[in-house]
Amino acid sequence: MNDIIIVGSGPAGHTAAIYSARAGLDTTLFEGWMAGGIAPGGQLTTTNEIENFPGFPEGMTGPELMATIRKQSVGQGVEIFTETVESVDLSKRPFKVKTPSREMEASAIIIATGAIARRMGVPNEDKFWQKGISACAVCDGALPLFRNQPLVVIGGGDTAMEEAMHLSKFGSMVYVVHRRDELRASKAMQERVLANEKITILWNTVMLDVGGSEVLEHVVLKNVKTGEEFKQDAKGLFYAIGHNPNTVFLDDQLDLDETGYILTKPGTTNTSIPGVFAAGDVQDKVYRQAVTSAGTGCMASLDAEKYLGENPL
Amino acid sequence: MNDIIIVGSGPAGHTAAIYSARAGLDTTLFEGWMAGGIAPGGQLTTTNEIENFPGFPEGMTGPELMATIRKQSVGQGVEIFTETVESVDLSKRPFKVKTPSREMEASAIIIATGAIARRMGVPNEDKFWQKGISACAVCDGALPLFRNQPLVVIGGGDTAMEEAMHLSKFGSMVYVVHRRDELRASKAMQERVLANEKITILWNTVMLDVGGSEVLEHVVLKNVKTGEEFKQDAKGLFYAIGHNPNTVFLDDQLDLDETGYILTKPGTTNTSIPGVFAAGDVQDKVYRQAVTSAGTGCMASLDAEKYLGENPL
Repeated sequence: MNDIIIVGSGPAGHTAAIYSARAGLDTTLFEGWMAGGIAPGGQLTTTNEIENFPGFPEGMTGPELMATIRKQSVGQGVEIFTETVESVDLSKRPFKVKTPSREMEASAIIIATGAIARRMGVPNEDKFWQKGISACAVCDGALPLFRNQPLVVIGGGDTAMEEAMHLSKFGSMVYVVHRRDELRASKAMQERVLANEKITILWNTVMLDVGGSEVLEHVVLKNVKTGEEFKQDAKGLFYAIGHNPNTVFLDDQLDLDETGYILTKPGTTNTSIPGVFAAGDVQDKVYRQAVTSAGTGCMASLDAEKYLGENPL
Repeated sequence: MNDIIIVGSGPAGHTAAIYSARAGLDTTLFEGWMAGGIAPGGQLTTTNEIENFPGFPEGMTGPELMATIRKQSVGQGVEIFTETVESVDLSKRPFKVKTPSREMEASAIIIATGAIARRMGVPNEDKFWQKGISACAVCDGALPLFRNQPLVVIGGGDTAMEEAMHLSKFGSMVYVVHRRDELRASKAMQERVLANEKITILWNTVMLDVGGSEVLEHVVLKNVKTGEEFKQDAKGLFYAIGHNPNTVFLDDQLDLDETGYILTKPGTTNTSIPGVFAAGDVQDKVYRQAVTSAGTGCMASLDAEKYLGENPL
């Protein structure tokens, strides 16, 4: 039996694994096989340049960073299976984890399955993903590609407004595409956005497609009131329509919030079941950065080590 | 006036700086000049091998890691002063920060001044610091140097017991040196430690000195009841007698806990004063790792950016 099974292979999962294995705990990590449509390594594998992970002044790509961290896991003695966990049994210890190929038991479990940014699914989206299209303005907005260029944000909530404000420091103009004639964002936030000369809200508008040659050059929009279709120049397109946390496989065994994120006791990684810990984006809808995920991965390992010391099986 | 002033130059301070500058905010960082007796870069500059910071499978030294992260700050446009902040005025915005050479103002402040591990101050301590002596069992316990060797822990609280349990996986025997005839640790923790065959508690004992040739080889102990002095072989010596958070310069303007750590709203970096944020070890007495500090540094920057958006000066 494992001391710890970690489900997930982004910065949270691997940092938890590095700490756990280094603490002398038998540690197994399931990195998934295109779990949620995403390669082992998680959302970072869908990004290009990363400039804000501390320790890499020259920047590096998401896949490079995750390959490096995975190598560190392996070096510390973590056993890794490239299989997707389909279900877990958290009803009693040892906890059980099931993939298409095996069932394994562990004294403690760390859930680090992340979240997936919602996409619009327009026809040419895949072609321009990370060639102008991004799901994280904080991560990507400062890239040279976007400086003094027209940018588009899709969404109408607080996050969309924050991302528009953030992007207004870089782009020539930020167009917020919103399907209704009023925003869901808080009143205070709306006022700031409406007062920002570098933000234009395109009301009653939906996006039909994206286009360009090598990189994104425009989006195709439609005014749902008038039926008019038009092109808008755009070097950057930022989705701010939410994320889906990867928690369906938990089958409601852990307490989740109303949008499916795992609830943890703030300041810890403790979930509603003792011995089960959560780290990374699967429990974070606020910060969602590689380094914050890595930090909570470390916390989960230390929390689990303490738990195992106090509750040996 | 700066948008953000960051006080401190460890992983928390510099990660906050990288994110803030990258968000287009005017960012100044005071890295200190032997602040608290420690070089710019913080406690990591007093460590040798770091194997658990994600992204560095070959490991690196503390000074190397901090030099790399500092370079990244500079690359993002952070202005760095090698001066120690002696006082702050948080009574109203703009906040004021004072060093021996200058006074500067900022719309928001991030405190990331860290904490310093307490040392015993025995005569030959400096000679063997990081040559066998460490203040972090989780960080250093797994190093090859300590495998199957006699190790010593100084302390009698829960942290000391946790560190002894952690080290018992690596050393041949862990000796806990404790000056009294009972532990301060919780009863449950005491039971586990007393039941661990690889932990021996040396009651009523104090440490007088350390010795060795190139690296630590023994400690000199004294039984305070009998007056007997004796040598104990030890390849590792771990201080678990607490940390002092660097908060004196705040002059009680922020809410602190009973041991001087800055209180933050759990799950955020918000302090008791809006616009003032805290990250890293100065607000964390539980996890205290480089990567957890970096994570909270990122959080502080995002919290501050949001605050500045909502509360422009």
